[in-house]
Amino acid sequence: MSEYQPPLEDINFTLHHIGRLEDVSKLNGFQHADPATVSGLLEEAARFFSEVIAPLNRVGDEQGSVLTDDRVKTPDGFKEAYAKYVEAGWHGAHLPEEWGGGGLPYTVGLVVQEMFKTANMAFSLCPMLTQGAVDALVMHGGDEQKSTYLGRLVTGEWTGTMNLTEPQAGSDLGALRTKAVKQDDGTYRLFGTKIFITWGDHDLTENVVHLVLARTPDAPAGTRGISMFIVPKFVPDAAGNPGEENDIKIVSLEHKLGIHASPTAVVSFGDGGEGAVGYLLGGEQEGMRNMFTMMNAARIGVGLEGLAIGERAYQQAAAYARERVQGRKTGADSSEDVAIIEHPDVRRMLLTMKAYNQAMRALLYLTASESDFADHAESDEERKRASERVAVLTPLVKAWCTDVGVELASLGIQVHGGMGYVEETGAAQHFRDSRIAPIYEGTNGIQAIDLLTRKLPMEDGAVVRDMIEEMRGSLDDIRSVEELGGFADELEASVSGLADTSEWLLNALSTRTIDDALAGASPYLRQFATVVAGWLMARAAMAAAQGSDADSEFNLDKVATARFFGEHLLPQVNGLIPTIKAGNDLLEQARI
Amino acid sequence: MSEYQPPLEDINFTLHHIGRLEDVSKLNGFQHADPATVSGLLEEAARFFSEVIAPLNRVGDEQGSVLTDDRVKTPDGFKEAYAKYVEAGWHGAHLPEEWGGGGLPYTVGLVVQEMFKTANMAFSLCPMLTQGAVDALVMHGGDEQKSTYLGRLVTGEWTGTMNLTEPQAGSDLGALRTKAVKQDDGTYRLFGTKIFITWGDHDLTENVVHLVLARTPDAPAGTRGISMFIVPKFVPDAAGNPGEENDIKIVSLEHKLGIHASPTAVVSFGDGGEGAVGYLLGGEQEGMRNMFTMMNAARIGVGLEGLAIGERAYQQAAAYARERVQGRKTGADSSEDVAIIEHPDVRRMLLTMKAYNQAMRALLYLTASESDFADHAESDEERKRASERVAVLTPLVKAWCTDVGVELASLGIQVHGGMGYVEETGAAQHFRDSRIAPIYEGTNGIQAIDLLTRKLPMEDGAVVRDMIEEMRGSLDDIRSVEELGGFADELEASVSGLADTSEWLLNALSTRTIDDALAGASPYLRQFATVVAGWLMARAAMAAAQGSDADSEFNLDKVATARFFGEHLLPQVNGLIPTIKAGNDLLEQARI
Repeated sequence: MSEYQPPLEDINFTLHHIGRLEDVSKLNGFQHADPATVSGLLEEAARFFSEVIAPLNRVGDEQGSVLTDDRVKTPDGFKEAYAKYVEAGWHGAHLPEEWGGGGLPYTVGLVVQEMFKTANMAFSLCPMLTQGAVDALVMHGGDEQKSTYLGRLVTGEWTGTMNLTEPQAGSDLGALRTKAVKQDDGTYRLFGTKIFITWGDHDLTENVVHLVLARTPDAPAGTRGISMFIVPKFVPDAAGNPGEENDIKIVSLEHKLGIHASPTAVVSFGDGGEGAVGYLLGGEQEGMRNMFTMMNAARIGVGLEGLAIGERAYQQAAAYARERVQGRKTGADSSEDVAIIEHPDVRRMLLTMKAYNQAMRALLYLTASESDFADHAESDEERKRASERVAVLTPLVKAWCTDVGVELASLGIQVHGGMGYVEETGAAQHFRDSRIAPIYEGTNGIQAIDLLTRKLPMEDGAVVRDMIEEMRGSLDDIRSVEELGGFADELEASVSGLADTSEWLLNALSTRTIDDALAGASPYLRQFATVVAGWLMARAAMAAAQGSDADSEFNLDKVATARFFGEHLLPQVNGLIPTIKAGNDLLEQARI
Repeated sequence: MSEYQPPLEDINFTLHHIGRLEDVSKLNGFQHADPATVSGLLEEAARFFSEVIAPLNRVGDEQGSVLTDDRVKTPDGFKEAYAKYVEAGWHGAHLPEEWGGGGLPYTVGLVVQEMFKTANMAFSLCPMLTQGAVDALVMHGGDEQKSTYLGRLVTGEWTGTMNLTEPQAGSDLGALRTKAVKQDDGTYRLFGTKIFITWGDHDLTENVVHLVLARTPDAPAGTRGISMFIVPKFVPDAAGNPGEENDIKIVSLEHKLGIHASPTAVVSFGDGGEGAVGYLLGGEQEGMRNMFTMMNAARIGVGLEGLAIGERAYQQAAAYARERVQGRKTGADSSEDVAIIEHPDVRRMLLTMKAYNQAMRALLYLTASESDFADHAESDEERKRASERVAVLTPLVKAWCTDVGVELASLGIQVHGGMGYVEETGAAQHFRDSRIAPIYEGTNGIQAIDLLTRKLPMEDGAVVRDMIEEMRGSLDDIRSVEELGGFADELEASVSGLADTSEWLLNALSTRTIDDALAGASPYLRQFATVVAGWLMARAAMAAAQGSDADSEFNLDKVATARFFGEHLLPQVNGLIPTIKAGNDLLEQARI
């Protein structure tokens, strides 16, 4: 039924022209990631994820992970596939070599993650969380903590979780109540209940390492009083092997709209009375700061899910449209029915999906690449500039890609007609799976507020202005390439629109009520991301049109697809300007 | 959990100011539908649907209708509720008095249907199909057929179905193969399999009347060769009571994304060998023509589902947002957490939902009202004009409302955050239910092609031009009402945009390839519907601002909500102009 073939041509092209893989591979420590090696590795990855992981997407949805006898059982085939994944070394591809990882750039690791997520979004959440735990331990772990946990988490031999949310504290972590009491031996005992714990338990590995946010008894209220703890399912013994079982109870699993294979657990710590054994990670009351160090990668990882769903939905819908014969071609002489892919309206839906997918891929690879420069560039200045870019791009990636992912999954169903509404077809699963991504890891509304109130005002607006000027600066080049048609004009108009709203909002932040600016935050994020994506698509089209093999099927298609993005989709964003600049008045006046 | 209160204030306001209820009630035959009577009746209806039907929405989703021993069993409570519905006379409210109906205008019947659909979309499909069967019998049935079936279908004592689709023939009915062989006694015997038969069987009533499209042996190929047959589950005996069981087998039910309470059946006719007994409805080979007479009402009925889902999702999300306390108000001095409805981004989502709902309601009531004028106005000219309007408005209602319905259901989940993704909350059901409406009763792509190739060219474009001129003609009035702020300017720009694309497309239909026009059909429909809805919202806001009680809470809110539609949402449509006018080139060049 539904198969997945990683689009290696577009992946490599985008890595090269947008992700600047050549430059990334020259960064300190990444010299073994030369483009040829990376390309070979991605071919192997494509085989692995399409053959081993993708076929489990459907069974994962149908069976789901289930709770029996206080333990979570994953769907058929997951345990074996996970073992192969660890065995092949995919989990640690971009994680530190020091701890057994492959030491590849994040930019390359992101592509591996993209393939996992597209193959099986629900399954991919498990390693994504483990990688977050690795980040936290690398940054904040003590030596002993590192030697006990890091090796096993880097390889994926154990997995990690993040325990943040509590019933009364969703996005507002300051309200959390889980308690951590220090013991004489320096360990802690934890008491409390966490909800929405992704892959909170499972049967894939012999241990699960929970990172838990909690409060020490004397901690101040709000987010400042939060500390982070390592709370293993089985407390490692002296040799570092899983020892005594900790006081952690999986209370229940949520019955969710989608991502059924991913167990979303209610987890109770210290229910037995003595408390769950925990180890402080970083300093007391540094929990929120530690969280923030993981946040960019986590948010980019969730943004990736928008692309993943969009790509999977596209491939499935395109395959269906090529096979399904129905209806004559309007206005044709022949009375023969044609495959529905011949109908312009169906082609429009499919090309919309494809163009958005390529645009999301470009935005994601740019962000990952800037992230590598932020960590590894030689000069302070380069690192600072790149890290500011990452700060701005991250909320765009998280919110825009996940919103678009839902829209494309919806189009994917529509291409199928009535068959799309029948679960067996598989198109509906993408639609259900897609809907979580705009919510978790900070709702998209929170991303928009982050962009508006923290990112836009960075350096008094200079970071955003600099991005806008860079886009403006490339307009002449884009205009000079004949093959790009009207792209430059549309891009110019949309970049000007972005400049307009950015200045209006910067001004509003200082001269109006904060609500006047906040009222426009979400459409501003949509506008911002679409414009940057449009600019990247124009650059991609330039590269395709100007290369030595500009007439190759891939390059001709790249130009047409990019132009579709620029001339059909991009022009829609300036329609958002009025609502971005309208302020809060009507939102206050209406009775909601 | 999820409750539904019909918004009677907005319903009555819209009936009065947009649906022209006063004028409708003066039409021949509708004199008993004076506004006061209608208002009382709708209050009663609101009680019935909110108290009896709405509480079954959740159980319907959870249990679904199931097939056991070749018969469909409906969810707990459905049978009893349906009996009350028939008993109270709601089913026949706007159906012919001659056959036991209430004889109310369609405009009023549509509101009753709105309440049923909002209370329980899956359940509402059963009476919707019965009403389609009533239409077919009233128009095309012989006297004996009418006396046998009509009375029982009008009251809802029996239900009807439409059997169109076959595995190889989805939207393309010309490809259908079900065979009908004439017998010496004038009856027919049917053989064939139909799929996607909504409420194809159930336990609510003692008989089900299938209307089946089939081919007589010598019929020509394509749609011209199709005839329509009455094929009852139990063949009525001489007294008209359900007699011998017909040769109809319910093969299976689809496992669908949503509307689980609605059994979607694969139905096999004549599997037993002798053929299912059928009676020709209308003449042989007139099946398609008969179908078309039912089509407008069916498409408007499905359009109504966009509003239904949008309204239900809005009410649920707004209730949640009022209760759910989380996060401080950004920039506030107080450190107190507030209900999330205080956050501007949440208010934006809710007001977007509310404004679209009111706009859909206005478009639907206008269409229903024109439909009453088309059937009952005194002069030929009035009837012709109204029926042309209905022809143009119907694809707008069907496609735009159902697309918007999906978008609003998605926003409804987003307002809930993580809780929205958990099935128990109920928000996810609306999202799943909503997704069928853009597909059935002619996909939204087919609606767009209908608008472009059949409706726009009516009278050489004069019908559409006349609508555009009417909208333009009201701009001065709108501009003169100070309370309407910038609405008139935005409306003027968007009406001009619609005039521009309409002329471009009319021209393209005669001077370019048909694909150049078809490529823009879907965004053109979106633009057209949004502009008409914007115009209706402006008219509603004028009425609210100029009435004697302009300062009432309702009227102040109406103005603010309408202005939000006009100043925040409507301006987005001109961004569609480039894609509407771009033609088919890139769709052809890209490799899909």
